Amino acid sequence: MATILGQNQYGKAENRVVKITRDGDTHHIKDLNVSVALSGDMDDVHYNGSNANCLPTDTTKNTVYAFAKEYGIESAEQFGIHLARWFVTSQEPIKRARIRIEEYAWDRIATSEANSKFIGSDEVNHSFVRQGMETRVTQITYDGTNWEVVSGLKDLVVMNSTNSEFWGYVKDKYTTLKEAYDRILATQVSARWRFNWSDDEQRMPNWEKSYAEVRKHMLQAFAETYSLSLQQTLYQMGSRIINHRSEIDEVRFSLPNKHHFLVDLEPFGLKNDNEVYFAADRPYGLIEATVLRDGVDARIPVDMTNL
Amino acid sequence: MATILGQNQYGKAENRVVKITRDGDTHHIKDLNVSVALSGDMDDVHYNGSNANCLPTDTTKNTVYAFAKEYGIESAEQFGIHLARWFVTSQEPIKRARIRIEEYAWDRIATSEANSKFIGSDEVNHSFVRQGMETRVTQITYDGTNWEVVSGLKDLVVMNSTNSEFWGYVKDKYTTLKEAYDRILATQVSARWRFNWSDDEQRMPNWEKSYAEVRKHMLQAFAETYSLSLQQTLYQMGSRIINHRSEIDEVRFSLPNKHHFLVDLEPFGLKNDNEVYFAADRPYGLIEATVLRDGVDARIPVDMTNL
Amino acid sequence: MATILGQNQYGKAENRVVKITRDGDTHHIKDLNVSVALSGDMDDVHYNGSNANCLPTDTTKNTVYAFAKEYGIESAEQFGIHLARWFVTSQEPIKRARIRIEEYAWDRIATSEANSKFIGSDEVNHSFVRQGMETRVTQITYDGTNWEVVSGLKDLVVMNSTNSEFWGYVKDKYTTLKEAYDRILATQVSARWRFNWSDDEQRMPNWEKSYAEVRKHMLQAFAETYSLSLQQTLYQMGSRIINHRSEIDEVRFSLPNKHHFLVDLEPFGLKNDNEVYFAADRPYGLIEATVLRDGVDARIPVDMTNL
Amino acid sequence: MATILGQNQYGKAENRVVKITRDGDTHHIKDLNVSVALSGDMDDVHYNGSNANCLPTDTTKNTVYAFAKEYGIESAEQFGIHLARWFVTSQEPIKRARIRIEEYAWDRIATSEANSKFIGSDEVNHSFVRQGMETRVTQITYDGTNWEVVSGLKDLVVMNSTNSEFWGYVKDKYTTLKEAYDRILATQVSARWRFNWSDDEQRMPNWEKSYAEVRKHMLQAFAETYSLSLQQTLYQMGSRIINHRSEIDEVRFSLPNKHHFLVDLEPFGLKNDNEVYFAADRPYGLIEATVLRDGVDARIPVDMTNL
Repeated sequence: MATILGQNQYGKAENRVVKITRDGDTHHIKDLNVSVALSGDMDDVHYNGSNANCLPTDTTKNTVYAFAKEYGIESAEQFGIHLARWFVTSQEPIKRARIRIEEYAWDRIATSEANSKFIGSDEVNHSFVRQGMETRVTQITYDGTNWEVVSGLKDLVVMNSTNSEFWGYVKDKYTTLKEAYDRILATQVSARWRFNWSDDEQRMPNWEKSYAEVRKHMLQAFAETYSLSLQQTLYQMGSRIINHRSEIDEVRFSLPNKHHFLVDLEPFGLKNDNEVYFAADRPYGLIEATVLRDGVDARIPVDMTNL
Repeated sequence: MATILGQNQYGKAENRVVKITRDGDTHHIKDLNVSVALSGDMDDVHYNGSNANCLPTDTTKNTVYAFAKEYGIESAEQFGIHLARWFVTSQEPIKRARIRIEEYAWDRIATSEANSKFIGSDEVNHSFVRQGMETRVTQITYDGTNWEVVSGLKDLVVMNSTNSEFWGYVKDKYTTLKEAYDRILATQVSARWRFNWSDDEQRMPNWEKSYAEVRKHMLQAFAETYSLSLQQTLYQMGSRIINHRSEIDEVRFSLPNKHHFLVDLEPFGLKNDNEVYFAADRPYGLIEATVLRDGVDARIPVDMTNL
Repeated sequence: MATILGQNQYGKAENRVVKITRDGDTHHIKDLNVSVALSGDMDDVHYNGSNANCLPTDTTKNTVYAFAKEYGIESAEQFGIHLARWFVTSQEPIKRARIRIEEYAWDRIATSEANSKFIGSDEVNHSFVRQGMETRVTQITYDGTNWEVVSGLKDLVVMNSTNSEFWGYVKDKYTTLKEAYDRILATQVSARWRFNWSDDEQRMPNWEKSYAEVRKHMLQAFAETYSLSLQQTLYQMGSRIINHRSEIDEVRFSLPNKHHFLVDLEPFGLKNDNEVYFAADRPYGLIEATVLRDGVDARIPVDMTNL
Repeated sequence: MATILGQNQYGKAENRVVKITRDGDTHHIKDLNVSVALSGDMDDVHYNGSNANCLPTDTTKNTVYAFAKEYGIESAEQFGIHLARWFVTSQEPIKRARIRIEEYAWDRIATSEANSKFIGSDEVNHSFVRQGMETRVTQITYDGTNWEVVSGLKDLVVMNSTNSEFWGYVKDKYTTLKEAYDRILATQVSARWRFNWSDDEQRMPNWEKSYAEVRKHMLQAFAETYSLSLQQTLYQMGSRIINHRSEIDEVRFSLPNKHHFLVDLEPFGLKNDNEVYFAADRPYGLIEATVLRDGVDARIPVDMTNL
């Protein structure tokens, strides 16, 4: 045989599960998109089509829905840990499970005055509106011994309308860019951060609180950094997370520089005093980097942020 | 000539304009996507390729940016009115202008405690994060005499986790659906509402306030209606808007019924007590209707909500 | 009651049906996306939530699949006619049915030499690859008496690398565009054409042949027109269809002008002799028009092409 | 400093370049989307915002367009090699360049009979229509010494309407799937293959021919494999490529199992003899694996296919 099988994984992707939890009359929602990828002794199914070691992807889907009932969904991370543990420990041929989850957030709908009096609350306890554009993500990997949890978010769009410059760069024969001393800085944040929790003996982080805090620090660092380059802003975002959150050792960002070009209004006899911008689609600068706690090894792959 | 020209229009679509307004140190953003469509004496350009009556689409783009400076962007509606008036009144061959605008909303970023002390504010006055998934839209049409303003929104995703039933429907030989006495009702609202302002002599509505109020009433009607069908909920949403907002005469909705199917957990020995749902993509029910103030004529086209 | 119900319709949208037909060993595929919209005596369901006149959208979905078996899918148009007739004639409250269908085309996969000898054919008779980017569409409307069939396509991307000019246009104070005597003309065709077949007494067109011929004439007119404006090209495309196809009375196009801007290479000491272009995304010119057989009335709505 | 910088890269992404080459009257098109990512001595720009080592992303964009003129675009791979070499050799701080390119294919438009006589050809030599849904991709990486070229494609949608089974799999307490002895097998192929060319001393592959041959073998293996699992089909696709193309050492696939579920027509008194299917969107099985030439090391990352 001139060819052999390399790394392989399989499972059901994008299982959309919505879980309603009732706390008296008050309903809570968890809205997830769960993808399962399993690896192990899978040579035969590739070489011969023998499925003797192959748990159907349909079964992995059923397991997601059954576990939503059996364990509830306390957090995406905790739910992924239940799933990964199950697949690796219940099926001998499966040696490694990777669970990826997207989570969509919902806000409660405020009630009308009339209804507020009727139900005694400012919010309708079973009515919700989808929040934000951004999506929370997590990836849980388990090999029977060690855990790796990488959480993050994507499509968080932010803008500073000033406090950004770009100058002093290399100029070669193809350089035509003019230096900028006051520009808009806008990006669509894709970020992934790795927890140092890796072992059932360690105390597990508070996943929900951790997410809220990381997001807050990231946004504040973006807003409060006087930026000489998007790279500098990225580094500040990453280091502020690691400095404030002891449970996190590594952060990777993929930050498109969403260009806002000052429109030349001179042909129309108008002065554009940093007021009117053209928001361009493509091309865009793309700045990607990892920020690490000093002394730890990087483990988030370069293209991890494609999750 | 066996063929003739019918309705036609042209212009530059999707001009992305971002306008920063400075109020002391505090910046305000308007972030629009503006599409221009002009009609008039355009036979020659179609029949012969003579462009003598044709203002280039590139010029319509330039006008959008120049007007953002000259008039500012008080609201999407007001900005569209400036543009439509200009094209119809400045170019003799142009008899009708239709301006469509999408608006993207931004929130301010909250500051860190340290920065808050430094800048004396809880918000960074030039830092923003994109809000919500939904997009505000408007369409302004002007023929030199009459105005038609149709505003709306799309991609507002809402869910009631209870207080929805569906039963008592027609059953034919292809009917297999089971009646439901407690179901999730979820939809992605696309709505358009027409203002009765049509004439420069009339007092113009407060476009910004109107939008906020319409959105609020629509959400509250969705949340507070005990629903026997999505059609009923739709009608309540529309009539509540018209009853509360005298500036609006007509509302049209396109409401996909985003099905959440209760997962059958019995094969796994589990009872699903309205807790675990599969959120389906396609197919989906699609409910579309117009609600009118009694006595007025409908003018929003059936497929208007494709805007 | 201060508000009343206007135009309304409902049904199941985007039913994805794939039909395999076996002709001996040779398989044929029809791959459709079918959307049903029904109208009629639906006041009660909107006003009171009474579903007594309401055939569930789920039933309309079942009907699509059942009819794929009962009638087969000879063409998208013929299949839509079966469905529309059924809903209007079998349900007393339903007065009008509109069926929209997207069709995805597939090619056969060519076989390897070894297999070709084995199966005695150059093509594997049950293996297919999705063809083209474009999607064929149709809309069938039936009110119990008259038929309206509007077919078309979308996302057909075409380009002429020369034989396009644009000059002699209106110049106002916002005009900066330079005249062009040799430019790329590219567009993503969205077209809809209306058949004059409207009555069961008339002979029905050959829908499959008609589509192939219309597409051919449209492409040839695009390629063979020396263009002074995209409007002129559009008109040529429409009139060539009507002149060659007696079954069609009206065509409407929505043609984005996909701008290809000549890149200025002079700063790098290079001459760009109409060789290197930047393909822009937004904004784009948008040219929309109807071409009619002389003497007939236009019936395709202005925004029909959003289908 | 408690945090340090890890892997980082930057550049301009998605530069859309269209190159027209004239061969007498006959025009040829290359239509690419080029993304540049550069790495090297970039600590200062991250730590301090000093751009002294930073070639602007805007310059990398200019270089793409200038090189399209200076070198032409013989193939995406060759064009990427020119770019990667330039960045690494011309800028001292840049130690590594990664160029990713998407290529969109175009067919010529057939002429009408009349025009065919006029121009003496069956094709209009400057008129094109976008071909296929699939996108050709390549990634070139260069560190000043070694080259790595990984090419591939995405969004190639294929289907076998028979000759696929799935049975004999593991059954656990969450398994409800019924065994299938005749099913549709459909997938949207994303594939990447790595060339063993790595050194300027080696003879470079014929990139255009290689692509055409790989695609052909991949399609034929899909069509001609009687499939007991999608994994088996995947392995056959990969090994056929490696066995036929000596320039390729490694292939990685990401194959979503695009489920086509047989519709249950029994409630309507109809028998579904493998004729009528529901094409589902989500969830989908996802099968990913690498196939290697025996003896070589795997280098395509697990998530490479996200390119």
